Amino acid sequence: MTEQKGIHADAQGIKVIAFDVFGTVVDWHGGIRVEVERMLPGVDGAKFARAWRAGYAPAMQSVMARIEAGEGGFTLVDELHLHILDEVLRDFGLDERLDREARRELNAAWHRLPAWPDAVEGLTRLKAKYTICTLSNGNIGLLTEMAKRAGLPWDCILSAEVFKAYKPDPRVYLGAAGVFDVAPGELMLVAAHADDLAAARACGLRTAYVERPLENGADRPKDVSPQPDNTMHVRDLVALADQLGC
Amino acid sequence: MTEQKGIHADAQGIKVIAFDVFGTVVDWHGGIRVEVERMLPGVDGAKFARAWRAGYAPAMQSVMARIEAGEGGFTLVDELHLHILDEVLRDFGLDERLDREARRELNAAWHRLPAWPDAVEGLTRLKAKYTICTLSNGNIGLLTEMAKRAGLPWDCILSAEVFKAYKPDPRVYLGAAGVFDVAPGELMLVAAHADDLAAARACGLRTAYVERPLENGADRPKDVSPQPDNTMHVRDLVALADQLGC
Repeated sequence: MTEQKGIHADAQGIKVIAFDVFGTVVDWHGGIRVEVERMLPGVDGAKFARAWRAGYAPAMQSVMARIEAGEGGFTLVDELHLHILDEVLRDFGLDERLDREARRELNAAWHRLPAWPDAVEGLTRLKAKYTICTLSNGNIGLLTEMAKRAGLPWDCILSAEVFKAYKPDPRVYLGAAGVFDVAPGELMLVAAHADDLAAARACGLRTAYVERPLENGADRPKDVSPQPDNTMHVRDLVALADQLGC
Repeated sequence: MTEQKGIHADAQGIKVIAFDVFGTVVDWHGGIRVEVERMLPGVDGAKFARAWRAGYAPAMQSVMARIEAGEGGFTLVDELHLHILDEVLRDFGLDERLDREARRELNAAWHRLPAWPDAVEGLTRLKAKYTICTLSNGNIGLLTEMAKRAGLPWDCILSAEVFKAYKPDPRVYLGAAGVFDVAPGELMLVAAHADDLAAARACGLRTAYVERPLENGADRPKDVSPQPDNTMHVRDLVALADQLGC
């Protein structure tokens, strides 16, 4: 019988490549900075962007703690972003500058983040050989609009919203393997963040670290030195396609 | 302020078009018939395909009844299809002809269904103006592999699996509107099945009926006469793109 079932595997047994999105595929800092400076002239957009992003992990932790205590349900990142925006505007003394409608408009900047310059070419080449999907805490609607605007050619948009848990919860990584009916080791997570990759490895996934030295802004270069635990270490998504023979 | 937020609406206010898949976008009868006849020479593939498909709705109803009774969880369609296949093989007196591995291979035929000849062109044109997604009871992995093989250019793959309920449960239709943060009337469901469209209308969605007269096989033409309750009635997806000015 010919092998027609399921998804093809490469020589290493990798069938599906899942991508973290914010910072890994798109430039959240650059995108948010530009839109903040457009809507709030005179404000330091780079600093504002970092403050907004800094509220993200604590907000998700707080949702998960409430769910575990039986006190609340899963919350979309669009809603978390809006709540954090309110706090950042207050902390920056800008409460009077944006009304509710303007805040919703600025909040949607996360749907409009620009892809890193290598992303579309890299993903397009990888898609010819692998099934490629997002694996992001961003909600499905956000990721869909972003993909449509930036031309990101996902085979499938997977999100924390599908699994009702955020990364680094194991349900997200193992849930993604379950969706495609593959073993954890047949799924590789690509991310620019060591904590995301470490949590994926703990679930048995392969991992690829992508260098995004300016993820936090041109004036805040981050350490992108290789860590031996990852399956791969690449400069960008074109280099990933090169190394995987795509 | 420029309107940069969210997804564009057409003159009728439609922003997102969701598609039923089995029968509407792909030819389940033709695809299953061919693979049955390949793996079970001498068997009437057309009749076998109809029997397999006939088990689908009752299987989903039985899962939903068990969930409501607190006796079970949501079940992926891949698993339901395999269970129905076991029953059909028994009913056809073919139990000895396929082992477990061959059954899994035949079951994956649902991942390999061919698109109707108009589907890729119609969807590609619609995608330029609208956000297009699946809204199928098929599971995400199945729909992703099908799209990759058939070249279906979805912006997003939505499935009963996301909402943990099957169509015609209102949670699926309203859940899809929620994913994209649009009103029900800004979402249009396209399907070749009157019951699916009726349930969508009851939730406030717009609806488009697509004629697929040979969905059940060339020897079982079905009634495709227009029903006035639908927003649109089209011959195929190219005609839908024409009528929507895409």
